[in-house]
Amino acid sequence: MNIYLVGLGLIGGSLAKALIASDRVCGWDTDAETRRAAAALGVEIRSPDADLADIDIALIGLYPAATVATVATVAPKLGAGKIVVDLCGVKRTVVAAAAEICAAASGHFIGGHPMAGREISGFGAARADLFVKASMLLCPPEPTADAALATVKQLFRRAGFQQIVITTPDEHDRLIAHTSQLAHLLSSSYVKSPAARRHAGFSAGSFRDLTRVAKMNTDLWTELFLANRDNLTAELDRVIAELSAYRTAVAANDAPRLRQLIDAGNAAKEGLDI
Amino acid sequence: MNIYLVGLGLIGGSLAKALIASDRVCGWDTDAETRRAAAALGVEIRSPDADLADIDIALIGLYPAATVATVATVAPKLGAGKIVVDLCGVKRTVVAAAAEICAAASGHFIGGHPMAGREISGFGAARADLFVKASMLLCPPEPTADAALATVKQLFRRAGFQQIVITTPDEHDRLIAHTSQLAHLLSSSYVKSPAARRHAGFSAGSFRDLTRVAKMNTDLWTELFLANRDNLTAELDRVIAELSAYRTAVAANDAPRLRQLIDAGNAAKEGLDI
Repeated sequence: MNIYLVGLGLIGGSLAKALIASDRVCGWDTDAETRRAAAALGVEIRSPDADLADIDIALIGLYPAATVATVATVAPKLGAGKIVVDLCGVKRTVVAAAAEICAAASGHFIGGHPMAGREISGFGAARADLFVKASMLLCPPEPTADAALATVKQLFRRAGFQQIVITTPDEHDRLIAHTSQLAHLLSSSYVKSPAARRHAGFSAGSFRDLTRVAKMNTDLWTELFLANRDNLTAELDRVIAELSAYRTAVAANDAPRLRQLIDAGNAAKEGLDI
Repeated sequence: MNIYLVGLGLIGGSLAKALIASDRVCGWDTDAETRRAAAALGVEIRSPDADLADIDIALIGLYPAATVATVATVAPKLGAGKIVVDLCGVKRTVVAAAAEICAAASGHFIGGHPMAGREISGFGAARADLFVKASMLLCPPEPTADAALATVKQLFRRAGFQQIVITTPDEHDRLIAHTSQLAHLLSSSYVKSPAARRHAGFSAGSFRDLTRVAKMNTDLWTELFLANRDNLTAELDRVIAELSAYRTAVAANDAPRLRQLIDAGNAAKEGLDI
């Protein structure tokens, strides 16, 4: 299958490295050094302005706003019946706009979010095995042709994903606000304490876990957080209320209330299939 | 060396399993099944009411309040010049009381906190290698004989600790409020969101990291949190303020402020030697 990857950072680059064994992989990145490194691995470098009529599936590995603009460039050049998939961490804003653009070009659009990442970014950090054991979230707009969805599922299976989950943009953004976005904000907020700087010798696994995702790509995450304002604000309000309940119980030396709060957390954790 | 371990749970049990190869290990636990399992491993079971005159070092692996009571029982029976070490996660309340008791018996007391743990507890969860790569925090009260401190350091080296850090009860409790206690409260608060129950397929490493220590031994952590009220309240206030700053920026769609907050977290994370 002829794949076209726009954006060869951590995600697009890892897809290139994973798919080069099974598919013909064309790609593009605005960074010349990235293009050189990708070409050295067998990626056929092609600008979005070049002819794209031979491409079966275009995968857009860019930030949300750039993604929609790139779909508008690429979709009409692919031609009728071809497929575009985005790889952004938010889905409502991207899927609605991109689906409309692709439909106007008689093509298919499917929203995508690979649940995998690393603390470092760029083509150099990309790995062929990044998606092994990971979940691929797909948001096919209504209507999406069964054949297009089947083709996309097979593609991500070839890339190594363990699990492919079909969801809606609404459900995606609501759950991701918690599982990914709030996790990053908690880690970032935690690490800002002056005590963190003096952790050496005084820390173990819990400190390591809580600080792992404190460092974020500022441009990317600013876009992601603001594109999910409603859900993220609700999650922040909820966790601030939970922490405030702990704060009140601790400050008041209220052992029964503190036990109740710890037990509620224990019950929530026990209910997870993790 | 003759070691006496009171409390053979995760910590005391792991010390027993680690030291049985190099030392004569006596021990006690209020749970009969634990005593049987420990005896099967070669631990000589001896009640704190029995003769303890042959013991060189007693290690108390109990909750804070029980620790002080047990030091009061054990210290006079050890005799002059012997050493008692506690293994609690808070140090101000324990060290002051226990040091006084041991001094009255002409013995030495050194506060201790092994920076290692698991999400499960009890002798069955105890492991001979629990302390490998871990840090052992010691709080020797003023004055502590150099010979006693050297003996205790050697003991924890034999148990596998990579690093032994000398600190004060004040510094210990201030740093631990962040590196351990706040980490557990963030994880517990995070996992209570209804979205967490639906994480399957929608989560990756950040969710796993943030939920790992959400489950706590309720009795133990209630004591630990309340024995460190002042420091823990300050850490909770600080992290709630940081999260509230994120909340305000997100809700107001304030990209410049959000970038500033993310950058501050990045700088804090980059400053850690982790």
